[in-house]
Amino acid sequence: MNFEVEQKHFVEDSTALLRRLASRGVTLGPVIAQADQYFNHPCRDFAQTDEALRIRTEDCTSFVTYKGPKLDATTKTRRELELPLASGHAEFAELLTALGFKRVTTVRKSRRPFELVHLGQTVHGAWDEVDGLGTFVELELSADEAGVNEAKHVIASLAEELQLGPSERRSYLELLLAIRK
Amino acid sequence: MNFEVEQKHFVEDSTALLRRLASRGVTLGPVIAQADQYFNHPCRDFAQTDEALRIRTEDCTSFVTYKGPKLDATTKTRRELELPLASGHAEFAELLTALGFKRVTTVRKSRRPFELVHLGQTVHGAWDEVDGLGTFVELELSADEAGVNEAKHVIASLAEELQLGPSERRSYLELLLAIRK
Repeated sequence: MNFEVEQKHFVEDSTALLRRLASRGVTLGPVIAQADQYFNHPCRDFAQTDEALRIRTEDCTSFVTYKGPKLDATTKTRRELELPLASGHAEFAELLTALGFKRVTTVRKSRRPFELVHLGQTVHGAWDEVDGLGTFVELELSADEAGVNEAKHVIASLAEELQLGPSERRSYLELLLAIRK
Repeated sequence: MNFEVEQKHFVEDSTALLRRLASRGVTLGPVIAQADQYFNHPCRDFAQTDEALRIRTEDCTSFVTYKGPKLDATTKTRRELELPLASGHAEFAELLTALGFKRVTTVRKSRRPFELVHLGQTVHGAWDEVDGLGTFVELELSADEAGVNEAKHVIASLAEELQLGPSERRSYLELLLAIRK
C-alpha cells in the first residue's frame, strides 16, 4: 500500500514566497489545467468519512483517484489509489452515476509543479491557483508504510524553512463547499 | 444509451445443435478463456435489483461492465456500460473494494464466438462451456432504444429455428450461486 504524505498552505504573499523558492533554486514548471470532478458515495457521506473519489482530467488524459481517510492531524497522510482511465472521463462518470455515486462539484485549478531536495529527499511541490479560492502551495512525498514518519518530518521541516505558516488540512473541495454554504 | 438484447439457452444435445448450426454455414471461432469477477454493491443487493458489476479478463485485457436491470421477461434486454481498463484488473478490484463493493465469485468459461445473419441482421452468438454449469448458447444483438423490439423479434425467431428450447433468464452467476446454496 502506498501513502501520500502531503501538506498544503494558503499563500498570502505570493511575491515573497516565490522569492524564497527562487533562493533555493526552485523554478516553477509549466501550467497544467486540472479539472477534478468529485463524487459522493451512494450510501456513505465522504464528507463524514473523510474519503474522496474524483475523476481528474488534465489535457487529454483522465485518472480516477480514491483517497482514504486522513491518518493524522498535521499532514494529509492517507491511502491513495490512482488508475488511468482508458475510456475517457465521461464514460467513467456515467458508470459511477449508474452505480449510485452522486456528482458533488468540479474543482478547477492551474497547477505549476516544482521539485526541491530537502534532507536528502526529493519533495514534489505544486503551486496551485484554484478557481474561487486563491493560491496554495502543496508539498508531497510518497512513502510506503515504513517511511511515513520520516516523510512527515521532511515535509514539516521544509514548510517551516519556507515560512509557510499553518497548514490547511481541508481539501479544495471542502474549502469550496464551505464557502458556498 | 445502448441496449443488449440477449437470449441464452442451456444446450442438452451439443452434437445435434452443432449440426444445425453447421447446416446454416456457422463455424465456431477460436476459444476465448474468460474469467468474470463479480461484485456486489456496498448498499444495495444486486441479486435483488437485478444489476451486475463485473471485471472481465480475457487473455491480457480487462473490462469493467455494468448491467442494469433486465427490462422484459423473455430476452435479457438491459442497459449495459462497458469500459476498457488501462490499469489491469487487480488495481480496479482494489478500487472497488476500497469503495465498499464486495467480491461475490468468479465465473470461468471457454467461449467460442460465432456470427449468423438472420432476417437481415448479424446476430452475435457464443458457444459457452461454463465451469460447473455445462454448455450454453447465447444470441445477442445490440440496439438503440428504437431498435429494441425489432432486435427481440430477430433473436426469438432465430432461437425457434435452431430449436433452442426455453430460454434461461438467469445469469451464469445466478445459476452458480443457486447450485451452491
